[in-house]
Amino acid sequence: MRVEIWTDISCPWCYVGQARFDKALAAFEHRDEVEVVHRSFQLDPRRVKGDAEPIVGHLMKGKGWTRAQALANEENLRQQSAAEGLPYVMGRDHGYTFDMHRLLHFAREEGRQHELLGLLYRANFAEERSVYDDDERLVEIAVRAGLDADATRAVLADPNAYAAHVRADLRAARAVGANGVPFFVLDGKFGVSGAQSTDMFARALDQAWQSRSPVRVVAGAVDAHVCGPDGCPVPH
Amino acid sequence: MRVEIWTDISCPWCYVGQARFDKALAAFEHRDEVEVVHRSFQLDPRRVKGDAEPIVGHLMKGKGWTRAQALANEENLRQQSAAEGLPYVMGRDHGYTFDMHRLLHFAREEGRQHELLGLLYRANFAEERSVYDDDERLVEIAVRAGLDADATRAVLADPNAYAAHVRADLRAARAVGANGVPFFVLDGKFGVSGAQSTDMFARALDQAWQSRSPVRVVAGAVDAHVCGPDGCPVPH
Repeated sequence: MRVEIWTDISCPWCYVGQARFDKALAAFEHRDEVEVVHRSFQLDPRRVKGDAEPIVGHLMKGKGWTRAQALANEENLRQQSAAEGLPYVMGRDHGYTFDMHRLLHFAREEGRQHELLGLLYRANFAEERSVYDDDERLVEIAVRAGLDADATRAVLADPNAYAAHVRADLRAARAVGANGVPFFVLDGKFGVSGAQSTDMFARALDQAWQSRSPVRVVAGAVDAHVCGPDGCPVPH
Repeated sequence: MRVEIWTDISCPWCYVGQARFDKALAAFEHRDEVEVVHRSFQLDPRRVKGDAEPIVGHLMKGKGWTRAQALANEENLRQQSAAEGLPYVMGRDHGYTFDMHRLLHFAREEGRQHELLGLLYRANFAEERSVYDDDERLVEIAVRAGLDADATRAVLADPNAYAAHVRADLRAARAVGANGVPFFVLDGKFGVSGAQSTDMFARALDQAWQSRSPVRVVAGAVDAHVCGPDGCPVPH
């Protein structure tokens, strides 16, 4: 069974929601038969490379908040993160994430997507050094995730590398009705919006597992070319 | 959409069927949204490491055939392969494949499963040197698929590495009703048994794509913790 999770690196509820989902999955009886795929979402699609800014200033401008209100919002997110055992450093930046999504697709091909996403979240929400507008910072994180430094640099240097993969995910988000993130789709059928509780994720996993359809053979004639216990007959 | 393909390396119809399926997939409009996963099947589960033998002798013993009959069967498979543009060397061996399945699961984690399977088929059916009972032969093939030689050796040296993954696939084969291979399951719902024609695979891909269910949101209350165009509200 497959679980697809639309996320953005700059999304604190994605950081928290991933931890809650991971706990539900770790306790799920059929966890070994669940494959998790991370899909790209842009929370702030107008961002361009080079325009990163502190989150507090971004919230004040974007929402008309006072500094105290913006800091209170961050403090609340810090507490919600701490409740899941996640570190959260006050004073993070906000910026362009498209290149990180390209890297996550590269990492998927290398079998390192889950590792890279976890390290990008951690870097963005819990490490002092910004993840934005600094390719070598991304290379350093990618290497920690098990990726090759030069191959990562090559992906970052070519703006077309994996860009179509990211755009396909953005289209797919609209197709499944995801207007915000995190957004989870279980077995292609059941949607879960937001950083729900671990208990809610556990129930959604159960529901999706129970409702899997049996496989119906649509092609498999008597003269099919198939190898079985009696060998590999060649029809004439 | 996901396509799962149960196979064994020693299965000529899997070799041919993969090529036919690949052609259908290459022409499929939504090919970029199809993920192919290779699953393990043991055609001859009583085989143990070290008991490889020439296929012709195996067919003569197992089926009571004359040498001429066994050779005619191989020649027929060679012709079926050639019709798909696949080379086929007469005189292949038959043997133990469990370790190759373990390697294919390792390769999946490294994003190299499809490459490794293609090279294992090619080595078994179209190269003179046997793939059986020769770990360094498998290392050489794995390196061609982009895997690390020492990591491959470590997997081969530890009989438990990825063995649970292989056994889970064998159980899953029974669950979906696959008694022989190749066996294809499209979108978890539609089964295709045997090396069907490219046209049949194309129709099965269309059918599975058309019948995808829309995503139904089962959890996403008004106070969900979600980041959207208006930011990441923290409910109180």
